[in-house]
Amino acid sequence: MINIKDYFNANREAVNIYIEGLLKNIDQYPNDLHDSMSYSLMAGGKRLRPILVIASAETVGGVRENVLPFAAAIEMIHTYTLIHDDLPAIDDDELRRGKPTCHKEFSEATAILAGDALLTYAFEVMSNLSLMPNCSPDNVIKALNEVAKRVGVSGTIGGQMADILYEGVGGTIPLLEYIHTHKTGEMILASVLAGGILSGATDEELAALSAYAKNIGLAFQIVDDILDVEGDSKVMGKNTGIDAKNNKLTYPGLLGIAESRHIASHLIDTGIKSLAIFGERGEVLKDTAEYIIARSF
Amino acid sequence: MINIKDYFNANREAVNIYIEGLLKNIDQYPNDLHDSMSYSLMAGGKRLRPILVIASAETVGGVRENVLPFAAAIEMIHTYTLIHDDLPAIDDDELRRGKPTCHKEFSEATAILAGDALLTYAFEVMSNLSLMPNCSPDNVIKALNEVAKRVGVSGTIGGQMADILYEGVGGTIPLLEYIHTHKTGEMILASVLAGGILSGATDEELAALSAYAKNIGLAFQIVDDILDVEGDSKVMGKNTGIDAKNNKLTYPGLLGIAESRHIASHLIDTGIKSLAIFGERGEVLKDTAEYIIARSF
Repeated sequence: MINIKDYFNANREAVNIYIEGLLKNIDQYPNDLHDSMSYSLMAGGKRLRPILVIASAETVGGVRENVLPFAAAIEMIHTYTLIHDDLPAIDDDELRRGKPTCHKEFSEATAILAGDALLTYAFEVMSNLSLMPNCSPDNVIKALNEVAKRVGVSGTIGGQMADILYEGVGGTIPLLEYIHTHKTGEMILASVLAGGILSGATDEELAALSAYAKNIGLAFQIVDDILDVEGDSKVMGKNTGIDAKNNKLTYPGLLGIAESRHIASHLIDTGIKSLAIFGERGEVLKDTAEYIIARSF
Repeated sequence: MINIKDYFNANREAVNIYIEGLLKNIDQYPNDLHDSMSYSLMAGGKRLRPILVIASAETVGGVRENVLPFAAAIEMIHTYTLIHDDLPAIDDDELRRGKPTCHKEFSEATAILAGDALLTYAFEVMSNLSLMPNCSPDNVIKALNEVAKRVGVSGTIGGQMADILYEGVGGTIPLLEYIHTHKTGEMILASVLAGGILSGATDEELAALSAYAKNIGLAFQIVDDILDVEGDSKVMGKNTGIDAKNNKLTYPGLLGIAESRHIASHLIDTGIKSLAIFGERGEVLKDTAEYIIARSF
């Protein structure tokens, strides 16, 4: 029996130490660039995506040490999307992870470049074979390609674009599902697949991980929508009620809180079922899925 | 004897056809994202960086077909830097390659995401081994890592950040050299090295290519500074006189036109000398260097 909170804490700590090491390898000049990257990256995120990279690796028999570069890189990519989404021209948010957003703390120009730099550094880290001496170069490049695909037009960025286009316009559940699965789901899928691929998962294992990730990824975003309605901004570390203010398409907005919670629970159950082939090894991923849904209650 | 204009035209055509094929592989939805990426990428650039990838490959015995994915990817990266640099929060430019800049034609939000998407797609293309069946995966990942390093904090983005920080503040030649070698030089170096690495260049060949690229990269940016003073905006396809308007650090601003031209010529000569080990095979890179300096007269 693993205590999932201890597991999260231990891995969050390991990821943070690893990221701090990577930040030391970045040119300190120009200071503003280094400082803004570090500011947003070390603002105290939950590190859910890196933990999923590690948990997936361990589920298929891999070890944390080998996948830390990808875990850190995906957190950098996640952070860059937050920095750019918060910009005045996009969501115009002033608070993130309990602190002023990057463009409020530094400047808009610096925030644009800090985001670009985190995305670019993520790919530099993922292609640095010396950081992954125990991974085969073939698996490294396959995992990198998977990440690139899922955080681009067919994934995260496509979802974000649609989110902006339909703000205030309204829409249907299929459109909202497109936005959520792309904007949030694909990066969660990339995390889980990268951990598996780097650890030499079989095609059958990757299919199971993929089914798991697709379900929990959508559930995670539905829960996020619910928390934006019901959550306390002090606990969340970001302003709440933002979706309603911005007329964003959300599950609670279209279906109400109770039905949204019901759909999220169902997705979590389906995701957990796809872990069957892993037997006891699937426990951490199962507990992680349950943690996601528990956030909404 | 190669006619360098014919060589440029033939390779520009091949690169454009290849890029058009890559654009067809991108999700057409959301339209705004696809359209803005295509708009900026197909706006009629000179394709100098892709041509350098190809020319370097051929100089060490490689073939164009094998390096087209990297050639196209580096042009995407170049285009993303232009889109983001033109944003209101950075250079606030309205004209680029003879057309409205991306954020003027679409919107600021779309331009931020189009830039992000081009950068991400570049890494997806560079890590797609099926596009490079004749390259070793080891060389592909090595070349990708080289590109990532040189377009990040220690390269392009670091240079751009310094450029912004010192706008209107003034500075010295060493600072300006930092800005130019980083903002422009490192991507030219990445182009030349990628072509060489993918084609199996020896360490000695890579050292020669590197010395060549560092010299012509700085010369290229000095010539660009000169053209911003002396060029015709109709011929250039972008507004001129922008550097002076924005109080940018430039070579002509610090040293005058004549001295700037002299330095650029000297850099070109030094770059050409480092091609000696290639004998006749170095002819295209030599002619390319001469073309760069000829633009300033």
